[in-house]
Amino acid sequence: MFPDATAPAVTSVFTAVLTEGPLSRVALARRLGLSSAAVTKAARPLIELGYLEELAATERTGPGAGRPASPLTVRAGREFFVGVKITGDELIGVLCDLRAEVRASAHRRLVAADVEHVLAELAELVDDLLGSYRDRAHRLGLAVSGDVDQATGLVRYSPFLHWRDVPLGELAARSTGLTVTVENDVKALTTAEQWFGEGVGADSFALVTVGAGIGCGLVVNGRLVSGAHGVAGEIGHVGFDVDGPACHCGSRGCVEAVAGTDAIVGRAREVSGRPGLTLDDAVALARAGDAPLGAVFARAGTAIGAGIAAVANLVGPARIVVSGEGLSAYDLFEPHIRAGFQRQAFGAAADCPLSIRPLPFEEWARGAATVSIKALVAS
Amino acid sequence: MFPDATAPAVTSVFTAVLTEGPLSRVALARRLGLSSAAVTKAARPLIELGYLEELAATERTGPGAGRPASPLTVRAGREFFVGVKITGDELIGVLCDLRAEVRASAHRRLVAADVEHVLAELAELVDDLLGSYRDRAHRLGLAVSGDVDQATGLVRYSPFLHWRDVPLGELAARSTGLTVTVENDVKALTTAEQWFGEGVGADSFALVTVGAGIGCGLVVNGRLVSGAHGVAGEIGHVGFDVDGPACHCGSRGCVEAVAGTDAIVGRAREVSGRPGLTLDDAVALARAGDAPLGAVFARAGTAIGAGIAAVANLVGPARIVVSGEGLSAYDLFEPHIRAGFQRQAFGAAADCPLSIRPLPFEEWARGAATVSIKALVAS
Ligand SMILES: [Zn+2]
Ligand SMILES: [Zn+2]
Repeated sequence: MFPDATAPAVTSVFTAVLTEGPLSRVALARRLGLSSAAVTKAARPLIELGYLEELAATERTGPGAGRPASPLTVRAGREFFVGVKITGDELIGVLCDLRAEVRASAHRRLVAADVEHVLAELAELVDDLLGSYRDRAHRLGLAVSGDVDQATGLVRYSPFLHWRDVPLGELAARSTGLTVTVENDVKALTTAEQWFGEGVGADSFALVTVGAGIGCGLVVNGRLVSGAHGVAGEIGHVGFDVDGPACHCGSRGCVEAVAGTDAIVGRAREVSGRPGLTLDDAVALARAGDAPLGAVFARAGTAIGAGIAAVANLVGPARIVVSGEGLSAYDLFEPHIRAGFQRQAFGAAADCPLSIRPLPFEEWARGAATVSIKALVAS
Repeated sequence: MFPDATAPAVTSVFTAVLTEGPLSRVALARRLGLSSAAVTKAARPLIELGYLEELAATERTGPGAGRPASPLTVRAGREFFVGVKITGDELIGVLCDLRAEVRASAHRRLVAADVEHVLAELAELVDDLLGSYRDRAHRLGLAVSGDVDQATGLVRYSPFLHWRDVPLGELAARSTGLTVTVENDVKALTTAEQWFGEGVGADSFALVTVGAGIGCGLVVNGRLVSGAHGVAGEIGHVGFDVDGPACHCGSRGCVEAVAGTDAIVGRAREVSGRPGLTLDDAVALARAGDAPLGAVFARAGTAIGAGIAAVANLVGPARIVVSGEGLSAYDLFEPHIRAGFQRQAFGAAADCPLSIRPLPFEEWARGAATVSIKALVAS
């Protein structure tokens, strides 16, 4: 069992070592504004229960060097976590260690998206993934697109799954026997970047996902932004072209109405005059030099860049990561995302570094596992 | 003198009583997560030095009622603060009490915007305002549009004043003998709303200013957003119409390029065919029913509403206040701001309450004074 984290120092010491370690007790005390004694006291149960260990002492040199420091590091194999992303036609699962390194992965096709079928497949997927790690894994993180209440594990509304008010956390806990967390998929991915990726140590940070929808996770003043009315990070519905194409949200010319997958396919069919054109066809033709189809991707990239600039102009994050399935067409998007961003970013907001990169297939599931790691640490 | 606020409990107790009081010690302890003893200890020097006082005890009723509670309240007249907004052609000044209530106000026309002239006029304005409050006023807050480094009092760049790298805090301290704070004007106004206005108690909050420029101050996770690269709240350069009019920022169709004062006057001259038309003329004609001029204000209001929706979609503040000189044409803007917001706000983001109201003339200066009150409390 993880130590009782009612002492906030236990949580902050473990979080710092997990996300930024190895760190000596002296470095931890300085970083967290704690006394050495408080760090030592918080670390003790973490070491006794096998979550932290001391690395071999390293000789310190230079003026004032006292006795050698033994940096604390996380024992990544102490506990394992299952993460699953639920989509309308597939479950994508991973098994991670405490540092969110993926140790195993597995998928299952779904033939339907009703709750019962999904839960049955989920139980089998989790069983496969647990394998020989069974006795060191107690937690399952689930990621779902849409409106999710993380505190209660309730999926309020998931458009792709056609779910409304599904108590997913409770149901999955019953069918798997694990402690379950449920989170919105973009927030889960943002948490993974914040704890183990490019967001480590940043007070503000944004993750933009490009695919069927255009989403955004935001960390401001050190915490994930949730929105007082339950909505935040909806970069897909920032305005781009007030007279542009109709959007499913009821407005016109939103970023998503120009740059979401459906919008790109629709526009590609229009300009090519081929009503059966698929996204893959459009990508292949644009890559082969088809100018009108190239222009469709260029405009989509420009819209995404303008949306990202709205984030930079309003919130000013330290850095922004752009990722998602859509970036499998990276070469068609990337220069236009950057140009659209530069065009619309105001003054020094243009200095915000953009990391634009494709999303490894299992990253969503790893995000779900990260949320369950975070739940352990802050439990 | 204010008690040494190195004890964080002193700052948090005083801030809570100042912004949400009167509050009993019991209510303070509950609200701040402190022990009763810690609240009593923090309150003692505040009472001794005259910043707080006890109201007459009120009988408590109901189960568990113990001895009567004596709520703590702020002695508003204990100390006074001067606040001045510096514009290109005018100084607007107020004298406020500890609760940021305006006790006196004064203006001075500027014949030039060079630093020496502004400082000389500022010294006289401050002298006028201090009057009989001189021995109970030690702090001056200044508000300037543009890029301001609050920590050092440096005005990095103020376009309307044509200032670059002016150490305004230092210079004004020398010429007035007061302790000076300098802040960006929109941030100062946001601080006033956060401490004494509609932002009190809200974990997230936005203030949008409409005038020559369109600005925005943001509070997220309880703190003012500054931007990691020095830019935040630039709602004026959120995209609205990608093919719209050129903006001074280098892009096209930004909110400000459609709804800033210059943009409105320029467009009004175009549609009326009268190159000498002023803003007042345009307002008068639109009010008298001139349809093309009415449409200019309608489009400007729609653009402002779309920009506000971008704030709501991305950050999800609890509430948004819309104000500024531009809202003297309130009747022409207000319905279109609301419609533009409703059109572009995504899902439950549309539930965010908008307060749209004209800005009293001295409000900017009161914002500057509020920053100096905040500096006292957190010093
Ligand atoms: Zn939309
Ligand atoms: Zn602009």
